[in-house]
Amino acid sequence: MPDKDRLSAKLAFQSDFRWNGVQPEEYKAGGGDWAGINRQVLVGDGAVTSFHLRYFEISPGGHSSLEKHQHAHVVICIRGHGQLIMGDECHGVSFLDTFYIAPWTPHQLVNTGKNPFGFFCIVDANRDKPQPLAMEDLIRMMQNPVVRGIVRPGNNNLSCDL
Amino acid sequence: MPDKDRLSAKLAFQSDFRWNGVQPEEYKAGGGDWAGINRQVLVGDGAVTSFHLRYFEISPGGHSSLEKHQHAHVVICIRGHGQLIMGDECHGVSFLDTFYIAPWTPHQLVNTGKNPFGFFCIVDANRDKPQPLAMEDLIRMMQNPVVRGIVRPGNNNLSCDL
Repeated sequence: MPDKDRLSAKLAFQSDFRWNGVQPEEYKAGGGDWAGINRQVLVGDGAVTSFHLRYFEISPGGHSSLEKHQHAHVVICIRGHGQLIMGDECHGVSFLDTFYIAPWTPHQLVNTGKNPFGFFCIVDANRDKPQPLAMEDLIRMMQNPVVRGIVRPGNNNLSCDL
Repeated sequence: MPDKDRLSAKLAFQSDFRWNGVQPEEYKAGGGDWAGINRQVLVGDGAVTSFHLRYFEISPGGHSSLEKHQHAHVVICIRGHGQLIMGDECHGVSFLDTFYIAPWTPHQLVNTGKNPFGFFCIVDANRDKPQPLAMEDLIRMMQNPVVRGIVRPGNNNLSCDL
């Protein structure tokens, strides 16, 4: 990321879903309730915008943490396919499918396939920290057998701060 | 766009760069200093986010207005190719190239090709209105022969509010 008071810049798209001038941040695989994720911050604290733009990539078998929070997410898929658990529903996620995840909606992104699953995630710059689900959230979600087959409840002690 | 207090939603990507549940808004072709643009608002006033997500598509030969403003733009190309004039430089724009256009940077997007040129544009929800360029901005830009060959100065009486 460039410095504060960031100047105009082109982040040229490169092969293997990297952007020129953006450093990928590797997450430890299998660290807890998330697994196999890396992140690139294309627009973050250095910008004057009230939002941040990040690219997340989940390896085959990986997933984000199962969480909820006050701030909304906007997710745009740009690589591969995945699953999004959103409330008590499970949605297939393909190229340029776009999701609005409203405040306090429990959610998790899961890569059940054999190829990388990558997506932009846009969030408010000022946002609260993710919270693990309450037991009643989990019970409600688990009523849906599709969700039950996809969800990775984990131990909720760690968060990938998606 | 869904109502205020918007619920979580999937905007499924459809053929021809439409999203399920999103109404394209056509701009009059050749209305003034912009031409051949249509817009889809994927995340707008109905959401609680501090940002808006829009998809713009510029027809062959079309362009956005040449403008500047306090708010920053983030542009992500997802369809075709185009040109972005940003300050006194001109950049080629291709698939997933991402641009941060800093405050008060004069800019214009131009489709010099034969196919549609489409991109996401993310902006703060609270933003100022675009302004036409000052004569000194225009003179500085025109020093660059590449910019001079691409730019569409127009009459600056209308704006497509990119």
